[in-house]
Amino acid sequence: MGRVNSSRDRLIQAGAQLFAKKGFGGATVREICADAKTGVNMIHHNFTNKDGLLKAIVEQFSDDVFAIPMRLLDQEPRGKEDFAARMELLFSTTLDAFVRQRHILTVVVRERADPPAFRAYIGKFQGFLEDAKALGLVRSDLDTQMLTGFMLDRLLNHVIYASWIEKVYGASNDSDEEHRTRWLKSNLSVFLDGVTA
Amino acid sequence: MGRVNSSRDRLIQAGAQLFAKKGFGGATVREICADAKTGVNMIHHNFTNKDGLLKAIVEQFSDDVFAIPMRLLDQEPRGKEDFAARMELLFSTTLDAFVRQRHILTVVVRERADPPAFRAYIGKFQGFLEDAKALGLVRSDLDTQMLTGFMLDRLLNHVIYASWIEKVYGASNDSDEEHRTRWLKSNLSVFLDGVTA
Repeated sequence: MGRVNSSRDRLIQAGAQLFAKKGFGGATVREICADAKTGVNMIHHNFTNKDGLLKAIVEQFSDDVFAIPMRLLDQEPRGKEDFAARMELLFSTTLDAFVRQRHILTVVVRERADPPAFRAYIGKFQGFLEDAKALGLVRSDLDTQMLTGFMLDRLLNHVIYASWIEKVYGASNDSDEEHRTRWLKSNLSVFLDGVTA
Repeated sequence: MGRVNSSRDRLIQAGAQLFAKKGFGGATVREICADAKTGVNMIHHNFTNKDGLLKAIVEQFSDDVFAIPMRLLDQEPRGKEDFAARMELLFSTTLDAFVRQRHILTVVVRERADPPAFRAYIGKFQGFLEDAKALGLVRSDLDTQMLTGFMLDRLLNHVIYASWIEKVYGASNDSDEEHRTRWLKSNLSVFLDGVTA
């Protein structure tokens, strides 16, 4: 990295922001370049075309994004308390990762992209839940794939629809650190009560 | 109603489908009219412009959509079994409503629209959970607004991202009736175990 302000990086940032806001079809090459403060030929120069830019944006959603949450899943849970503690950390570090990459995440979801890092994360999480199930920590009748979705739906929507949720529910999801802490705790509590054996 | 095949209705249908697929910015007036098999001036004639068409699409998400699920929430729960039974019916009839209006729902979510019917549904659901809490059926430490979100996130994402989930998880969410029944049962079970007192 280290080229934080290269025109390539600025185009990726501006592109992610505009695709997140207007969708891939709604953002023009011209406005992306204007936002990135580059010449209008720079998308062509760096990425061939708008599709190439989208690909580069989705690739930003790399293994790095999930480095911290993934590490929590490296070993199988040692018991009930350890399982609960690691789920709590998994919820909060995954939420942090999503918030840090909010625009890219929104583009990934909007365009139904399939970054390998996301797939790897889900696979590892599911494996961890399978281990927990084998150890009698998770209810044996539950589908672990469904359970990963339960948590990810909550976290994804919390980040992607923050301003929408705020409009409909009046909850200041995002800006309010205390609200987020309560939200996380409350969700975790339902999740743990629902899944543990 | 009764004018199912009027050009107005065809434009609403074609618009919902194209906005769902490409986003509001990505779909052109020309292609919407082509898909609806109307002349290119018909959006102007019926809705003034593309914004007007979007508004008409969101308005399709009316009280009718939630008529059946809403009725389940009319009376407070009579006890533990009644609460569980009504939650089960609420999950399944809401999912049905979402599936029936899949394109319109996708547009509502994509464009972060705020149909009054959706707000009314959430408000009524929350009130029902408050009643259940007062009756000691729902854990007293849980925020009922958060709980409505728990269920709605699951159902919304299940419908909106059906093809994406199928690609990433390999689960044929949609086409497979048996899979859906299992999915609903499993989610309901986590939800009920997580929320009931």
